[in-house]
This record gives sequence, structure tokens and C-alpha cells, in this order.
Amino acid sequence: MCDLKYLEISRMEYRQLALEYKPECDLSSGFPDFPAFPDHLKKYVAEVTNDKDLDHVLYQYTRGYGHPRLVNAISKLYSKLVGRHIQPMSEVLVTIGGCEALYCAINGHVGPGDEVIIIEPFFDCYESMTICAGGTPVFVPLRNKGMSSDCASSRDWVLDPDELTRAFSNKTKLFILNTPHNPLGKVFTFEELHLIARLCKKYNVICVSDEVYEWLVYKPARHIRMATLPGMWERTITIGSAGKTFSATGLKLGWAFSPAKLMKNLFIAHQNSVRCGVTLIQEVTARCLEHETSLLGTSDSYLENLSAGLQPKRDYFCRVLTDAGFNPSIPEGGYFVFSKWSNLAHKVNLSSEKDAYIDFKFTKWMTKNLKLHGIPVSCFYREQNRSLGENYVRYCYFKREETLAKAEAILTNWSGRSLTET
Amino acid sequence: MCDLKYLEISRMEYRQLALEYKPECDLSSGFPDFPAFPDHLKKYVAEVTNDKDLDHVLYQYTRGYGHPRLVNAISKLYSKLVGRHIQPMSEVLVTIGGCEALYCAINGHVGPGDEVIIIEPFFDCYESMTICAGGTPVFVPLRNKGMSSDCASSRDWVLDPDELTRAFSNKTKLFILNTPHNPLGKVFTFEELHLIARLCKKYNVICVSDEVYEWLVYKPARHIRMATLPGMWERTITIGSAGKTFSATGLKLGWAFSPAKLMKNLFIAHQNSVRCGVTLIQEVTARCLEHETSLLGTSDSYLENLSAGLQPKRDYFCRVLTDAGFNPSIPEGGYFVFSKWSNLAHKVNLSSEKDAYIDFKFTKWMTKNLKLHGIPVSCFYREQNRSLGENYVRYCYFKREETLAKAEAILTNWSGRSLTET
Repeated sequence: MCDLKYLEISRMEYRQLALEYKPECDLSSGFPDFPAFPDHLKKYVAEVTNDKDLDHVLYQYTRGYGHPRLVNAISKLYSKLVGRHIQPMSEVLVTIGGCEALYCAINGHVGPGDEVIIIEPFFDCYESMTICAGGTPVFVPLRNKGMSSDCASSRDWVLDPDELTRAFSNKTKLFILNTPHNPLGKVFTFEELHLIARLCKKYNVICVSDEVYEWLVYKPARHIRMATLPGMWERTITIGSAGKTFSATGLKLGWAFSPAKLMKNLFIAHQNSVRCGVTLIQEVTARCLEHETSLLGTSDSYLENLSAGLQPKRDYFCRVLTDAGFNPSIPEGGYFVFSKWSNLAHKVNLSSEKDAYIDFKFTKWMTKNLKLHGIPVSCFYREQNRSLGENYVRYCYFKREETLAKAEAILTNWSGRSLTET
Repeated sequence: MCDLKYLEISRMEYRQLALEYKPECDLSSGFPDFPAFPDHLKKYVAEVTNDKDLDHVLYQYTRGYGHPRLVNAISKLYSKLVGRHIQPMSEVLVTIGGCEALYCAINGHVGPGDEVIIIEPFFDCYESMTICAGGTPVFVPLRNKGMSSDCASSRDWVLDPDELTRAFSNKTKLFILNTPHNPLGKVFTFEELHLIARLCKKYNVICVSDEVYEWLVYKPARHIRMATLPGMWERTITIGSAGKTFSATGLKLGWAFSPAKLMKNLFIAHQNSVRCGVTLIQEVTARCLEHETSLLGTSDSYLENLSAGLQPKRDYFCRVLTDAGFNPSIPEGGYFVFSKWSNLAHKVNLSSEKDAYIDFKFTKWMTKNLKLHGIPVSCFYREQNRSLGENYVRYCYFKREETLAKAEAILTNWSGRSLTET
């Protein structure tokens, strides 16, 4: 039993806000507003659902820790990417999205007295899952060093090596890494990962590496898998997601892989909550992964072309934000842009908004007055550190051209209006 | 973090056994070995997956607590069945099968110091989920009073009113009811429910009513919903399952409904583990439920005809068991038969089996020597009470005619053989 009132509030409140004010342009939610998934996803859905011979398989329970064909497909893909054989039956767990994989990793390994290091800002469930498991979160913030003078980038956000080192102790059980990072879009470099790895090894810490945006990395940035660092396979639980991989979040299918000795506790947490995933979705995902594994290195690869296709949207939307007076940190990965709005404070009258945090006031004002819907960023920080996020807003740009053009029209119009007003 | 080694053992061991010994007749798992689901399930799968207009909805996240169309469909069906309006947005949660609904109910309401009353034998996750939530399980056994002299029935298994009363205290937080009951097939009578309800009200206890087999009740038994008893709506969380309702366990879609004040904690537990269900499966289930709600009371109702269709299988297989020397308790509900095997002890040589419990030895002997696969029943009891289940085995009879005929052939042959051998 876990009392997490705040968790409910921010999520539900912003969905409710959208229902109430019907924003013309909703950039709050982290998924495309158009069918961006590969053609073969629907092809395989049709193939498996039309195959009468599969009826008695497809609509009944499959193996609880993962449909055999799917754990084999995951094993095959990641064995290649990680450069070592991943045992499908003992080293892979299929989950209900990346969320449940995180839940199983945290709930399976953390107990009272254990500390879990979380990088701020963070995907909200890292903190709540740690608390619910009885653990104590220890936070290390990414700080904006503003190294890129001309154009802000997500790589400006870095961990302070001393702060990072001080977070580790003999009580540390897990380190939660998220690369590419949500909401910042930061892609951790080899040097950054190397320092984290060194500390994990020194303090005998397990690294939970949330890599759900692994295919969404813009050149020249490069995704490096924590499990491939020297001595890290032994202590890394890597988390992936079919929803992010295939731009189809509604699949709600994720996975974790790790050495069997770490995986055992995830199996127990899984068995003790959802027990088994959806057979049909697992069969379809298996076929999609098999297909994509065979296309790696070819021009037909959906996975390897995903970020190149998204980059124009990123560049366009970041320019729109810059032109409107925002100060975006151009993301190296993912499909969110973390953008400073506080330079625009003089253009908004937030006195009618009652929230404790000014980014909540700003985003609500935007939704109500400009019909542009984004997510306040302070909720990606622990309660005592919310002020670190108050000057920022998160927008998702994995949207149709028309949606982004609408955002541009709204912001251009606003810029024009206020030039005359101020 | 929760250490539940035994949980893993019994489940996995029996699946492994089946893989290894390839039983000719597998009656261990609780689902049909043929497409027993209604025709409209596949019709709606085709309908939604072929509708291009649904693509950007179907493959992206839906509302976390339940797809709007589905919570409306659940509300409509159960408002009718329970006789009061169920609020779709605040009183219904859609989950990953009945399992996750149980997880959310238990994890959402139980904490250290809380007691949870569990009826023995029990579906294994009741105990493990209670322990993982920090609660203390308090067990009350169903005892075989052998009232049916000619033919044993699941209704012979009853709670002792004094034992039941003594289980309640001011520490009791939840009472977990399972009707129709797995593995016994017992359908609780109004008088039995009334006593439980009276105690729940007296001690201010929440009743988690696992009614996933609600449509699988054989006449003259009748399913009574705990939430319909006087004063019980306020304190009942009812759990249902599309997998059991539509004979398609692979859907892994379940639900819970309760007053909003009880539901809030389930929402938090859900958000903090899986967060959201699979959109496609929810859309299909919504359509199936809408269709079936419109057919209630007509001869085309799949739900109302389900048990009538299964009853011949139950009667046939119970006769097969009786003829072979078993002593089955004929189930009033569900699709399992709980059957005494110990009268056959003289016909088996269990010395080669090394398990601690004799029902494990017996079922393994059966799988290896007769190629008939069933589930030992002692694992449905807490560790100290396993002996109460040792004389029994559980078989699932929701199988093709040929599968049941194979069981008959195996058992008849065995009877013949041993008549000459003994």
C-alpha cells in the first residue's frame, strides 16, 4: 500500500485540462498523432488474426514470462546488439510496456533500507515505484552547464561528478539510468556512462538502464548500451519497449533483459502482479522484431531510419520555439523538447492560476489562452527540487506536420500580438 | 521486494513436466484447448483491425484506468446486473486480467499490520499478493462435510461458522471471496454470503469478490454477486475477467468495480505498476461486452448459454473419474473438478517420486506413467495446511471431446490393467 497522491494529480489534471479546454494543438502526450508505425505491424496483425490455425493459441494464455517466439526474437535482436548470447528463457522477461519492466526491476530488487539513485529530472514512476518498494530515492540532478553558447542542446545538461560520487554508498542498491533521456532528450556519452559504471562496480550496484528510446537518437549522437560497458553486463537490467520501438505505444508491450541471477526477482514480481501478457500482441511483436532484425544494416530498416525521419520535425519545431522566444535545449534523442519558457514571463499574466509551481501556471495559461497544450517540467523533479524545473516546459514533436504548423501559427500569432501589446 | 520461491516452483515445475513428458492428455491448465470463444470475438478483432480510421487510436495509449468505450461497456453491463448505476470513470478499473485487478485491490488496500482473510483452498496469488503488500493472511478452510451421501458435490465444502467468525478481528482489512470457487467449483449460497457480509459489516472489512467465473454456474446453482447483498455495495470490490467470460484467457483483460472511494487506491496501484492496458484488446472487449449486454435474456446470449454448453463435459468427465475409482466433488461452477484420488493409492507405486506432498507424487506419477496431466491440490493451501489437499487432484474439463475421450481411454485402460494386477 502506497500513498502517492501527487502521482495521480499531475497526470490526471493535464488530461482533464485537455478534455475541458480542447486545445487546438496538443503536444503533451508522448506518442505520434498519426500512424507512424511500420507497415509490417498491421501486416502481421492481419496475418496472425486471419490464421485459423492460430485461434486456439492466440486467444489463450501463453508462457507467463514471455511468449516463446517473442523471447526468442528479443534474444536474437539484443544478442546481436549487445554482442553476447542472451538466453531467451532465463534472461528475458516480457512485460506490459516499459512501465511494468521498471516495476518488476524496482519491486524485485529494492526493499526497506535500500537506496536507489535517480537522475533528476526523471520519468515520474522511478520515484513512486522506489517508494512503494520500501526503498529510499537518492537524487542527482542534471545541471545545465550552458556549454553550447549559440544554441542550447540537451548535452548541456550534465551530472556533476562530485555530486554523482557522493550519491553512492554501501546502501545503494540500484542506479536508474535513462538514455536517451525523458524529458531532456539527452543521450549519455561513453565518458558519462563510464563514470556511472565505475561507481556501480565500486559499490556493487545494479544498473537499471531504461533504454526505451534506443532507436530515437539523432546523429552525431550515438546510443550506447550500458550492458556493453566492461564489467556491466553482470550488473545491468536493460529495459526496452515495443511501443517506443515501433511508434505504437498502444501495444503496451515491453521487456527487460539481464543475467539470469538478476532476472529471477523480476520473474517473481511479474508473476505476483500481472502474471502473463497478451498472447496476440506478443505474437505480432515477435514477427515485427524478427523482420526488423533481418533488416538491420539495410536501407529498409524501420528502426535505423526512425530518427532520420523525425529529425526534420525536431529541427522545425525547435526553430518555431526559438522564434517565439523560448529557449529549447535541442534534444539528441527521444521525441520531446525541454524548453525554457521563462524569458516569456513578461508576456503572460498568470495571476488567475492558483498552482504552487509557476510552470504549472504557465502551461495552464497556454492551454486556456493559446490552446497549445504542453507538460510542466517541475513534476519531473522530487518535491524539494521542483524549482529546478519551473522555468521549463516539455513538448512532444512526434506529430503530424499540420499539428506542428498549427503550433507555429499559434506562437507566431502570439508573438505578433504581444509585440504590439508590450 | 518479496521472496516467494515456492510460488515459482509449483507453477513452473508442472509446465516443465508437461514439456518433458508430453502427456497425451493435459488437463492441468485452466483454459479450453479449442476455440470456445464466441464468433463475435474474431468478428470484432477483424472489424477494428481493418478499420483504417482507427489506426491512430488503436495503436496508441488510451486512458490509463480504462479505454473510455470499455469502461462504459463494463458500467452498462454491471449496472444492469448489480441493479445500481456504476460510474464508468470513477468506479471501474480495467486491468491486465483478473490477476492485476487482484493485485491492485490487495496492494492498494493492504499494508503492514493489516490482516486479510483467505478461504482455503485458494487461488495462489491471494496469499502471495497479501504477503508482498506487507499484510498477514488469515486462513479459513472449506471443510468437506460430506452431506451428499450418494454423489459428492462442491457444495459439501463449507465454512465452519465458528471458524469463520474467529478469523475476523479489528485488524482485518480485507476478506477475499471467490465465487464460483477455484479449484473447488463451489458456488456460495445466499446464506453463506449473508454470514460473510454480516461479519464484514460488523468489523468494517472490505470484501474483494473474485467473480471471474460468474458465467460458469450450473443449474440449479445460481451466481449471487456479493455487491448486491444489503449494505455490501459500499464495501465490495468485484473482480471480473474477459478471458473467463469469453473463454479467451489470452486476452489478459480484467476489471474491478467498486464505489469510487474504494477504487481510488486501485487506481494508484495500477498507475504505479502497468499504468495502462492494451488499446486494441480493450476496444475489442468493449464491442464484445456491448454485444453481449444487448443479448442478455435472449437465446443468442453466449454468456447465458456458456454453462449449459459445458455441463455435458462436466457430467461426462465426472463419470469417467468415478468409473476409474476417483471420488470427484461435482462442481457447481467453473471448469475444474476437484477430485479425491486417495482411494487409488493402492494402484500406484510412488516410491520413485521425491516430493514432500503425496499429491505431487501422485500427479507426477500419472503424468509420467499414464500421460494424464493434472494439478496437485496441496499447493492451493498455505504451507502448514498442505495436508488438507494431499488427497486431491484438480483437472480442467473445458477441453475438446477427443481430449476428454482420451482421458477416458487412459483411465479405463488403467482400471483394466490394475484389476488384473491387484
